Amino acid sequence: MASYDNFDTLPAYSELQNLCSQAPDLSEPGTLSPERLKAFHAESAGFELFYGTQRVDETIIDKLQDLADQGKVVEKYVAMKQGEVINKIEGWPCENRQVLHTAGRDVFSSKRSAPEASNQSETELGKLASFLSELEQHALTNDQGQPFTDMVQVGIGGSDLGPRALYYALAAFGMEGRRVHFISNVDPDDGIAVLQGLNLSRTLINVVSKSGTTLETLTNEELVRAAYLKAGLDPTRHFVAVTGQGSPMDDPKKYLRSFYMFDYIGGRYSATSMVGGVMLGFALGYDHFNEILRGAHAMDMAAEEKDIRKNVPLLLALFGVWNHNFLGHDTVAVLPYSQALIRFTAHLQQCDMESNGKTCSRQGQFVTYKTGPILWGEPGTNGQHAFYQLIHQGTTIIPVEFIGFRNNQYPGDITIQKTTSQEKLNANLLAQSLALAAGQKSDNPNQTFTGNRPNSILMADQLTPYNMGALLALYEAKIVFQGFLWNINSFDQEGVQLGKKLATRLLEHMAAQKEDANYDGSTSDPLGWALMKATGLAKK
Amino acid sequence: MASYDNFDTLPAYSELQNLCSQAPDLSEPGTLSPERLKAFHAESAGFELFYGTQRVDETIIDKLQDLADQGKVVEKYVAMKQGEVINKIEGWPCENRQVLHTAGRDVFSSKRSAPEASNQSETELGKLASFLSELEQHALTNDQGQPFTDMVQVGIGGSDLGPRALYYALAAFGMEGRRVHFISNVDPDDGIAVLQGLNLSRTLINVVSKSGTTLETLTNEELVRAAYLKAGLDPTRHFVAVTGQGSPMDDPKKYLRSFYMFDYIGGRYSATSMVGGVMLGFALGYDHFNEILRGAHAMDMAAEEKDIRKNVPLLLALFGVWNHNFLGHDTVAVLPYSQALIRFTAHLQQCDMESNGKTCSRQGQFVTYKTGPILWGEPGTNGQHAFYQLIHQGTTIIPVEFIGFRNNQYPGDITIQKTTSQEKLNANLLAQSLALAAGQKSDNPNQTFTGNRPNSILMADQLTPYNMGALLALYEAKIVFQGFLWNINSFDQEGVQLGKKLATRLLEHMAAQKEDANYDGSTSDPLGWALMKATGLAKK
Repeated sequence: MASYDNFDTLPAYSELQNLCSQAPDLSEPGTLSPERLKAFHAESAGFELFYGTQRVDETIIDKLQDLADQGKVVEKYVAMKQGEVINKIEGWPCENRQVLHTAGRDVFSSKRSAPEASNQSETELGKLASFLSELEQHALTNDQGQPFTDMVQVGIGGSDLGPRALYYALAAFGMEGRRVHFISNVDPDDGIAVLQGLNLSRTLINVVSKSGTTLETLTNEELVRAAYLKAGLDPTRHFVAVTGQGSPMDDPKKYLRSFYMFDYIGGRYSATSMVGGVMLGFALGYDHFNEILRGAHAMDMAAEEKDIRKNVPLLLALFGVWNHNFLGHDTVAVLPYSQALIRFTAHLQQCDMESNGKTCSRQGQFVTYKTGPILWGEPGTNGQHAFYQLIHQGTTIIPVEFIGFRNNQYPGDITIQKTTSQEKLNANLLAQSLALAAGQKSDNPNQTFTGNRPNSILMADQLTPYNMGALLALYEAKIVFQGFLWNINSFDQEGVQLGKKLATRLLEHMAAQKEDANYDGSTSDPLGWALMKATGLAKK
Repeated sequence: MASYDNFDTLPAYSELQNLCSQAPDLSEPGTLSPERLKAFHAESAGFELFYGTQRVDETIIDKLQDLADQGKVVEKYVAMKQGEVINKIEGWPCENRQVLHTAGRDVFSSKRSAPEASNQSETELGKLASFLSELEQHALTNDQGQPFTDMVQVGIGGSDLGPRALYYALAAFGMEGRRVHFISNVDPDDGIAVLQGLNLSRTLINVVSKSGTTLETLTNEELVRAAYLKAGLDPTRHFVAVTGQGSPMDDPKKYLRSFYMFDYIGGRYSATSMVGGVMLGFALGYDHFNEILRGAHAMDMAAEEKDIRKNVPLLLALFGVWNHNFLGHDTVAVLPYSQALIRFTAHLQQCDMESNGKTCSRQGQFVTYKTGPILWGEPGTNGQHAFYQLIHQGTTIIPVEFIGFRNNQYPGDITIQKTTSQEKLNANLLAQSLALAAGQKSDNPNQTFTGNRPNSILMADQLTPYNMGALLALYEAKIVFQGFLWNINSFDQEGVQLGKKLATRLLEHMAAQKEDANYDGSTSDPLGWALMKATGLAKK
């Protein structure tokens, strides 16, 4: 088992610190060259990474290779895939689980990293295939014998963001006449607004919660259930469950079908499990979902490559660390030039920031270096008309990860003034990368662009189900690699517990004051009660 | 005319620097108290700001008042509203325009700050009222005499983000049977996907571009126009224009109706002009749009208050400056506890970052202090299941602006375990504010929350059209106040020009290589051509 060490104890760490002052200035004439733009290029599972516009040279890249080697990140990644219990903090109570989201898609050959988990995945995939086939052949219909046209995914966090991002990304591959909707927020307006537009009798409700105890999801399930009962429909004929075996939601009597997820798959890594599978299978068909898994698995394999120049997820992870820990940039913008990726950045916000927004090391110490960055972004070209002003001329430097595709998804692109819309999109993508790096000198300070703003371009041929799976797995691996380097546990989320605890106490006040007009929470919870009173939420 | 000075030359600046070390530690026992939570409270036009969880005390607030007074920000704001030409950089070519988005909603009394602009707004509002009334009375229909049910807003940046944010925010107040769609991105998949689901014959197309030259918008207009022609429909019977008088789009022969916007309203401040008005009027009805204006105007008036303790936009601006320039936090998260505000943060990203992501002072010097922060966020409670882990336990401190409402929008909330969903939502909002500030001590380092993370809560009764207008204007004023303090021009966007210029050159290569198989761009544009070749976008 590879040892876990604090990042700043690795020899390459201090060597990289010494190299900071030698990081190339991309705005200096001669730094960017045609040769550099061509040579600084890597490829994994259909995605190419162009990194001539990162502030690195061969010396720095060699040292990043040392950092990866000394941190044994590929060994740790392989051990993860083989089922080592790495979701833990030594010496402290923790989840103590394996991390096997990769096993769920390791079903395409007989040589498997974690056969037992892959077998469990295959069982669920088989159940899913039958379910979808019954729906398609109208063996499974509503009580009037009509096929189901709509599905509502009821879930939050990992049961919402990843699946939703993939659904929007691949809508172009959707089955005719099938639509999906999402209810996530405990805000009642979320669920009520979604239900307003639906024909409930033609709709399946997919309730997703690994623990079977998620406040928002159980509340929204009841909201939807009440609507079914009010409409005179039997929820057990419409509701499907995705949950952990043995969870409070694991009650086949309440659901038309139940699918399982497992404790070795964290919510934010669960898009390719049944958490995403049931909905994506319904929307896109089983074969397309299978293509997502195939692409993800191909990237999972490519991520085992030890040469960082041939491992895109690892290289992207190392550039992230270089920009964050060494060059001092606290945020990273992920800017896809694809409208279909409209919610992919929101998914990454969870996957990255919930994984690596940590301070506690694997040995239960507080780390003294920066861990996960703030990740944000919106698709281009839209962002160009929004926040790019700051990215180009603001006082804070924001490393950028561009994502693009040579071809768009739908037929019907048009040529205006000799170029297609897709060409316009990609011309803008390349232009932004160069503009950020090279900048522009000018006598006019308001037209001066200092440049030297690091960025990279990730590019594939087209956003297909296969490539979407690969892109998802690419970022999952990037995040895991960074967590290994920072010596943190990327798989728990203790940071969400305090808010939950305080909310529970406030809810007790809210319930109590309805039953007792004289209820006063000021003794048991002076601050919470005071804030309720100040904001007008305490009745008394 | 108030003089504009660099922020760091104001006496209060260095005094505030000296106060940094005395900023209260919110996690220390006794700092947060019921009295403090009650007392640290301000109100403007229906919005209350609770700021007991900011790292300030009365001394610091007094000094922030001095900063505002010395920076003459309220005088400058009033001068802006009266039509002073403040969109300029002294000594350099610039837009040299007035900034009068506030005048567009200053139509509710005869005492007006900029009567001429308000009159122009009234003219457009009158045209809008007639148009909407004709639609409602079916005096204006499609060629078959059927009423229009759908509208597509074709626009990008300010012509998309603000209007779209308001449409989602107020969908609960929508007119029966009216729906709105958006096409913004030059990505052809954006427009094609939207068109797929539409009955074009019942649809109005609202093309919005102030300059009438926006690449994305003109391209998408042609995409939609082609679809109409293909369907045998006459675009001039379906297309509406919102543009500047005299722009290339100002051609009444091509459009069913034309509405004007004016050069004194910047795109990112234009949601309450016809840019938002035509679509919002169609979706919500004229009266609801008028309520948005009424709320915005009320906040515009409230923002003239000089006592910062009675001026929410100004106080929020000053806390932003305190957290950013003095406490050193480079980002700010805006987290609305309202699913309806799902795209409000995306709008703010443009409004804030495009306004204040600047380095050039009003006198044409490079400023040496930080200007606009990185603004990002998603609605709660969803974010709690995504990126809050990092906000609570990450190594970078993120100031948070929470937004909440006492009541939800739709009827139909349900009670589960003695509380409604709206109560659950608000309990979580208050809990997060307290958890970030107070933190939690623990022997277990993984369950330790350092706390002392500054945040505030903005709260109103309900997200109505009036309150949405007020909230929009609140943030517009906040941004303008910060720009005044930083001595930058918050109203131009030179930072978007370089990308446009480089994209134009790349598009020329793309067009040329289609006409000449031997085209080679390496001499005229070595870097651009090299990147095209590397990424597979150059044919040769």
